[in-house]
Amino acid sequence: MEEKLKKSFIQKIAKFCKERGFVFPSCEIYGGLAGFYDYGPLGVELKKNIKDEWWSTFVRKRDDVVGIDGSTITHAKVWEASGHVECFVDPLVECKSCHRRFRADHLVEDLLGMSVDGISIEEVDEIIKKHSLKCPECSGELSSVKSFNLMFKTFVGPVEDEAHIAYLRPETAQLMFTNFKLVMKSARMKLPFGIAQIGRAYRNEISPRDFLFRMREFEQMEIEYFIHPEKVNDCPYLTEELLNFEMNILSAEMQMKGEEQRKMTLREALDKGIITTRWHGYWLALMYKWFIDLGVNPEKLRARQHLPEEKSHYALDTWDIEYHFPFGWKEIHGIANRTTFDLSRHMEFSGKDLSVFDEESKKKIVPYVVAEPSQGIDRAFLVFLIDAFTEENGKVVLKFHPKIAPYKVAVLPLVARDGLPEKAREIHETLKQKFTSYYDEKGSIGKRYVRQDEIGTPFCVTVDYQTLGDETVTIRFRDTKEQIRLKISELCGILEKLISGGLKFSELKEHEFNSK
Amino acid sequence: MEEKLKKSFIQKIAKFCKERGFVFPSCEIYGGLAGFYDYGPLGVELKKNIKDEWWSTFVRKRDDVVGIDGSTITHAKVWEASGHVECFVDPLVECKSCHRRFRADHLVEDLLGMSVDGISIEEVDEIIKKHSLKCPECSGELSSVKSFNLMFKTFVGPVEDEAHIAYLRPETAQLMFTNFKLVMKSARMKLPFGIAQIGRAYRNEISPRDFLFRMREFEQMEIEYFIHPEKVNDCPYLTEELLNFEMNILSAEMQMKGEEQRKMTLREALDKGIITTRWHGYWLALMYKWFIDLGVNPEKLRARQHLPEEKSHYALDTWDIEYHFPFGWKEIHGIANRTTFDLSRHMEFSGKDLSVFDEESKKKIVPYVVAEPSQGIDRAFLVFLIDAFTEENGKVVLKFHPKIAPYKVAVLPLVARDGLPEKAREIHETLKQKFTSYYDEKGSIGKRYVRQDEIGTPFCVTVDYQTLGDETVTIRFRDTKEQIRLKISELCGILEKLISGGLKFSELKEHEFNSK
Repeated sequence: MEEKLKKSFIQKIAKFCKERGFVFPSCEIYGGLAGFYDYGPLGVELKKNIKDEWWSTFVRKRDDVVGIDGSTITHAKVWEASGHVECFVDPLVECKSCHRRFRADHLVEDLLGMSVDGISIEEVDEIIKKHSLKCPECSGELSSVKSFNLMFKTFVGPVEDEAHIAYLRPETAQLMFTNFKLVMKSARMKLPFGIAQIGRAYRNEISPRDFLFRMREFEQMEIEYFIHPEKVNDCPYLTEELLNFEMNILSAEMQMKGEEQRKMTLREALDKGIITTRWHGYWLALMYKWFIDLGVNPEKLRARQHLPEEKSHYALDTWDIEYHFPFGWKEIHGIANRTTFDLSRHMEFSGKDLSVFDEESKKKIVPYVVAEPSQGIDRAFLVFLIDAFTEENGKVVLKFHPKIAPYKVAVLPLVARDGLPEKAREIHETLKQKFTSYYDEKGSIGKRYVRQDEIGTPFCVTVDYQTLGDETVTIRFRDTKEQIRLKISELCGILEKLISGGLKFSELKEHEFNSK
Repeated sequence: MEEKLKKSFIQKIAKFCKERGFVFPSCEIYGGLAGFYDYGPLGVELKKNIKDEWWSTFVRKRDDVVGIDGSTITHAKVWEASGHVECFVDPLVECKSCHRRFRADHLVEDLLGMSVDGISIEEVDEIIKKHSLKCPECSGELSSVKSFNLMFKTFVGPVEDEAHIAYLRPETAQLMFTNFKLVMKSARMKLPFGIAQIGRAYRNEISPRDFLFRMREFEQMEIEYFIHPEKVNDCPYLTEELLNFEMNILSAEMQMKGEEQRKMTLREALDKGIITTRWHGYWLALMYKWFIDLGVNPEKLRARQHLPEEKSHYALDTWDIEYHFPFGWKEIHGIANRTTFDLSRHMEFSGKDLSVFDEESKKKIVPYVVAEPSQGIDRAFLVFLIDAFTEENGKVVLKFHPKIAPYKVAVLPLVARDGLPEKAREIHETLKQKFTSYYDEKGSIGKRYVRQDEIGTPFCVTVDYQTLGDETVTIRFRDTKEQIRLKISELCGILEKLISGGLKFSELKEHEFNSK
């Protein structure tokens, strides 16, 4: 039932995204390539806005975080050290008659309706044998479950042998570890500090599915936050505001007791030991708040702790941020405590010293990654899109926060004659220097408003006959359809405030702007 | 000689980039991976600024260009259609005794000092045989020259067979062609219009070399500009300003006559038929001007037309923009006329109709790519870096245009006591909301100025004892070392103008700002 609801909802969103130019199936003219998507004209703007907001908030506005942009094809040794060559595997079965291959865990989920999250390859194999599952395509007999590495492999240089294998990175994280020393020294950083990166990652999923949820090529925004290993609670950034910030919390213990998530402040979660370290809590609240600050409905978010069996091989403790999609709660962000695992492994595998001299204890220490806020951009994209997706009288309205909307404003002449288009174009040219602006004169004004609502443009500026006389225009707000008249000379400044959130549209009336 | 000069210069730049955190060799702790680099904290900011300036200028501020962001792993059919499977090859020789492989053309260039640009595999083979060239590593005998495809190959899904091959794209261009119809329809575009993309591309170079010049993984910013095939001269955007824009021009004919480049206006080049279509000239001038507007020395740029034998398999005519590096002229940007080649080929290979209905002639036409401005970001990065690289009294000063400088401003307390750091931090926190700002209190003020000059920060704001009394600070300009005193309250507005280029530092004196 849930699966059916999910499928039909995702199909609807994928269709909308294709028609409006948000996301296209990649190489569609050649039948597409499963698990790969191309972002279209509106999608690329929305995605860029999301990335820019993230980079500005977590890198440029912070003194303790700097960025890198690493290579996506990477040395095989990196992934031996990280554990990916050994552990980044999926269970696979092959049909003995048609030779198709399937994710064993998905097969169990689909055919038996059982969740098999976190169980071992041997256990999945047993279930398949016990229930005598057959090939879903040809009903042939299935092989035993084997492990399949999810990294895309290629060869660097002309020789295709073992020595020239390189992997497309399955996560951006490792590049922050391999560059740790170079970054720390060149940027003159001291613990605690973070390294951030935005970029592609690749996973050769056996059965990519659900549109942007499980892709083979995707983008990540990640921070590795390094601290002194004994100072997991010395977080100087926990302001009163953040301590009083409320989240829906669902700890591992609550899950094991069968409890639902509960709203509590970060302070309460820390005081009661539900979140065990202050640094971890700090980053969790900050990322949770980021979604809300960009307009996501707070009631649809929750912070859920991983159960012991869910955790990755490198993680001591992990909290996910989940969003309540129409088909259930789904992970949209993960924050793992990776401890000293990665740096220690790279020290071991490279033979290089990645430790840091601690001035206080006069000893060398291996920095500790107390939090790795890891954000899949394509999932963030979906969350912002779906949270904004509203249907009014059979029409779609995308209620994006103005900061992330592809177009901030549309400039529309009431009719396409009598000098109105010329005046409207003039305003459009001016606004375009500051904001993404859309000019449209095709069709009735009502239709053009609907078109802008549908692509999420928060403000429409309309040039009418009065404009030619008194240099005023109307400005219309997407979410309330309210319109008010402004002087052209004030337009740019007001839009700037409306977009940044420094001014609400409803406050406009109380100002002097309305010169009617 | 030139080669030696080049090597030592490039080594010096690579060393500087590593020390200051612009660019690191990728996976250095594992001995590196030839042809792959990671951008460090300053590099990632410089690169992002370059990309953002490009996107803003050529996509967001234009009504006739929209963007996409396509997948980097792509369907093999795309590259059959594009001609890359067949034509994107390098000549390769293998040593018969040590089995090392080498680029045959590079071997000829290195061992014989001959340029073999554009000659065929058979011709290179003949030269090698004629001169009895041996393996440069072990002096062994060399094999015949064979062609080697430069695309990185991988397998999508669990089966590694012919049917599951996909390629890492060797250029971003093709994704604009495969998505052409979807983009045109969803974004409601009409000819003439362009599709732009920024993203990674990959080429499995046999001998990557010269730092960021010939990488295996790099980034591109490209536009495919589509017009009606019979309207190659109907360019409505050729303003007087652009027609009067001066470039150093070196046509194919001039090269064949042994002439040097000559300064001329775009108008002259068009009128004399040196540049044969107005659309091609328009994009060439626009891209040339973009470098100048971002601070590149105009005397170091030239537009050079490809000789007939240099042109790619898809190009009717190509103009490069070249920069005069300390070791000679080198291509930094290419603008090809790709005609209807790509869309026609994709129609043929996919069986899909990519033609467009022309309202005027009431006929279907295949759109014509009159210009493909193609920019390697890593090369642009090098140009901006090297053009800004200045040595003064043994110290490096990076004279970046403020728009692309990693940090726009540094805030420095004169000394680290008496309340100056607190005041400086307060100013830094305010400025950081608008610009990238660096706070530094370590070492003498002179040393801190030098440090900022070296990473290209255009403005330093210094908080001194006078600040505590009258709320003024000094602002210092990197390029002239001039300082002038400003009110803190005016700082943000003035910096905004200085960064955008709306105000020059030398003009500051003439204003009322100086409250001494």
